[in-house]
Amino acid sequence: MDFINKLKKITSDVLLKKEELYVYAYDTSQNPDKLILPLAVVFPKNTEEVSKIAKLCNEYKISIVPRAQGTNHCGGTRPVENCIIMHFSKMNKIINIDSENLIAIVEPNVVIGNLNKELDKLNLFFPPDPSNLAVSTVAGAVSLCAGGPRTFKYGNTKDYVINLEVVLADGTIIETSKNIAKNVSGYNLTSLFVGSEGTLGIITKATLKLIPKPQTRLLTMCYFDSLIDATKCVNNVINSGFIPSTLDLIDKFTIQTIEKFNPCGLLVDKEAMLLIELDGFEACVKYELEILKKILEKSGASAIIQAKNDIENENIWRARRSAFSALSQLKPNVITEDIVVPKSKIVDFVIKTQELAKKYSIITAIMGHAGDGNIHPNFALDLENIEEKENFKKLKDELFSYAISIGAAPSGEHGIGTQKQKYLSLALDKNSHELMKKIKHLLDTNNILNTGKSL
Amino acid sequence: MDFINKLKKITSDVLLKKEELYVYAYDTSQNPDKLILPLAVVFPKNTEEVSKIAKLCNEYKISIVPRAQGTNHCGGTRPVENCIIMHFSKMNKIINIDSENLIAIVEPNVVIGNLNKELDKLNLFFPPDPSNLAVSTVAGAVSLCAGGPRTFKYGNTKDYVINLEVVLADGTIIETSKNIAKNVSGYNLTSLFVGSEGTLGIITKATLKLIPKPQTRLLTMCYFDSLIDATKCVNNVINSGFIPSTLDLIDKFTIQTIEKFNPCGLLVDKEAMLLIELDGFEACVKYELEILKKILEKSGASAIIQAKNDIENENIWRARRSAFSALSQLKPNVITEDIVVPKSKIVDFVIKTQELAKKYSIITAIMGHAGDGNIHPNFALDLENIEEKENFKKLKDELFSYAISIGAAPSGEHGIGTQKQKYLSLALDKNSHELMKKIKHLLDTNNILNTGKSL
Repeated sequence: MDFINKLKKITSDVLLKKEELYVYAYDTSQNPDKLILPLAVVFPKNTEEVSKIAKLCNEYKISIVPRAQGTNHCGGTRPVENCIIMHFSKMNKIINIDSENLIAIVEPNVVIGNLNKELDKLNLFFPPDPSNLAVSTVAGAVSLCAGGPRTFKYGNTKDYVINLEVVLADGTIIETSKNIAKNVSGYNLTSLFVGSEGTLGIITKATLKLIPKPQTRLLTMCYFDSLIDATKCVNNVINSGFIPSTLDLIDKFTIQTIEKFNPCGLLVDKEAMLLIELDGFEACVKYELEILKKILEKSGASAIIQAKNDIENENIWRARRSAFSALSQLKPNVITEDIVVPKSKIVDFVIKTQELAKKYSIITAIMGHAGDGNIHPNFALDLENIEEKENFKKLKDELFSYAISIGAAPSGEHGIGTQKQKYLSLALDKNSHELMKKIKHLLDTNNILNTGKSL
Repeated sequence: MDFINKLKKITSDVLLKKEELYVYAYDTSQNPDKLILPLAVVFPKNTEEVSKIAKLCNEYKISIVPRAQGTNHCGGTRPVENCIIMHFSKMNKIINIDSENLIAIVEPNVVIGNLNKELDKLNLFFPPDPSNLAVSTVAGAVSLCAGGPRTFKYGNTKDYVINLEVVLADGTIIETSKNIAKNVSGYNLTSLFVGSEGTLGIITKATLKLIPKPQTRLLTMCYFDSLIDATKCVNNVINSGFIPSTLDLIDKFTIQTIEKFNPCGLLVDKEAMLLIELDGFEACVKYELEILKKILEKSGASAIIQAKNDIENENIWRARRSAFSALSQLKPNVITEDIVVPKSKIVDFVIKTQELAKKYSIITAIMGHAGDGNIHPNFALDLENIEEKENFKKLKDELFSYAISIGAAPSGEHGIGTQKQKYLSLALDKNSHELMKKIKHLLDTNNILNTGKSL
């Protein structure tokens, strides 16, 4: 094939054997639909190679699916017909950490957990914290505008990307801004690419904004005998002038499941838990904790427990981050949803989720970044079981329709991928959606960049 | 004229007399070039009228210059040939403040100072603080992505706009997102419009993110006998893990000028001052202050003075915000520049500015949000004096060329307008600039929206 020969001339790092291609036919999404193999998997080593490959693909109208670690929940990194996978494992260097200017320049495949280990040595900090810290990459976080528990205080990825090197569909290389934290010179192209799921351009370098690392982190587990009380407490905390670094909500079933899988002393008889982390100077955090405790008590907390030290703190977060793996012990498939509702609607949404799960007999475990209204209902099921599969489809349709009717967005940090496009159409203002499609067409006229994802 | 008749059918709020049009021929920019009168000034009362007017203008290829209070420093709200001014004074309502969901929905002409007065009653807070708080509007702040001293801790306008209603060039009305703080469903159109200086669409409504109001603010004036020491101190503060709400730098001449104009006890014999404000819970702020003082002393501060109370705090900020007016007492014209340099280059940039001011005999007063590297050199001169005017042009060209050579952006919060386009071309990556132009053409094919501004 002419295309493949030309591709091999650009780089010898190309996989073509069927058994190799199979490995890249999946991502973390539990897509029950048909399996598609890419034509090839290519591992560019630098921006120039990415540019040449894009140019070639654009000429031959072959789709490019950019992929880092493939932990996407929405099928955003799965192959489509007539595509190559562009894998970034060979572009994984931290190019520079500049502590004077508080920036880091990194290649796409840098793992966020590893970046923070390096920053830690310099007392610096990159706040976005997607659950799979140990595998999630900067490119993935940028493509999805990833958040995590800390978004409530610190914002999400878009707030920490100040400049991007991007390869456009025709191979053109652009730099979206400057390596400075503040810039309103021309249009904000950076934010246009952040969260665009690789459909507008291929990210080859990112300049990240860093902040000083908070001196202390103090984690409080606050339990409630009612999910409604826990949710109301979220507003009480915020309305008391608090901006904790996390305000995560976890339901009883999630607590029980993670405690079973990863015992760390969670109270399994409570209906809900808030994971509230304060950070900053030690003396301040201690002072804030005293005020916080009073608010929690007034809000009807039935147990308030502090993590004793950094190790316990880290253990509990690790357990929380293991929720997905823990649920996987129950059923062959776990589907993690990601919906943002107005804060005032969290209780309604959680109740609706539980009702639908009951109606369709699907196991659900609900957690979420309650401070942002960003809820993750997880569903454990067996997609080989036709009835369960059909029931889940109905549940999902009803849940998203309900969510959108109360003002929700179908994604807060996981993206749309191939799994939520019909909900996107329902949620978006029609004229706004049209404009997005026009922008996609402008930037990728042949529709080769992560074809069929997002919009 | 057919166009004017049709315009008057949409709204009777149209000014057409020459003496009325003159009033709208200016904004705060000190543009020495030729005076242009608009064809008309129109005052729409609602989004529907804006949409109808846009459609009409698009049909007749008449430019629309959207304008709120006109405090733009870069000519962004000045008329161009064959234009109407679309004035938003009749769309000035706070539609809703929702303290449960921490959002405010406002019309374009809401004055930021007034909004914060209302929010204050609910213990809420909208952080962006452009200097002219008493006149600057939300629409202006959104159009320029305005910042202010508090940007260092809180971010600028883009970080607080979560949804926009926008009228496109052809009259289409779009809603860019949802009224929720977190959303990655589809492309980030909101950030594309924020900072686009009215060249991509007309903002008719904005949903703003609010945060709890900090309990206490504590202002420290820290004086230095050397500008270099003051600048170095900025990095020392940041590297000690501090994120004060402001880290503003003011040079000797600025101190002297504002003290003369608005006496508030500033020490006029010092070379530089940092205005460092801490905010948060009172006990925390007091603790942080003790640490801060040690850092300031170690950094060679020659005087450290706290504002005694909220009134003194406010007086000092008022004096700082009066710098522009104070300088206007010295010469007929004051030109405020707005450049962002890498933090590590602040000293070099300040020295260069002083050198150029000396070389061309132009009065300069330098201040800026040093924590962000966002420096505002102000120049007082007489533009009627041909020599001064020519000298200033040379100074400006040399200053911007130098700044861009050290990695600066030509605007951090004031925009490009008509005054800095040549520097924008120098500063932007060529391919990136091309893409911006294509986006402009896509959204405004007839080039009627704030024609000739920004790009």
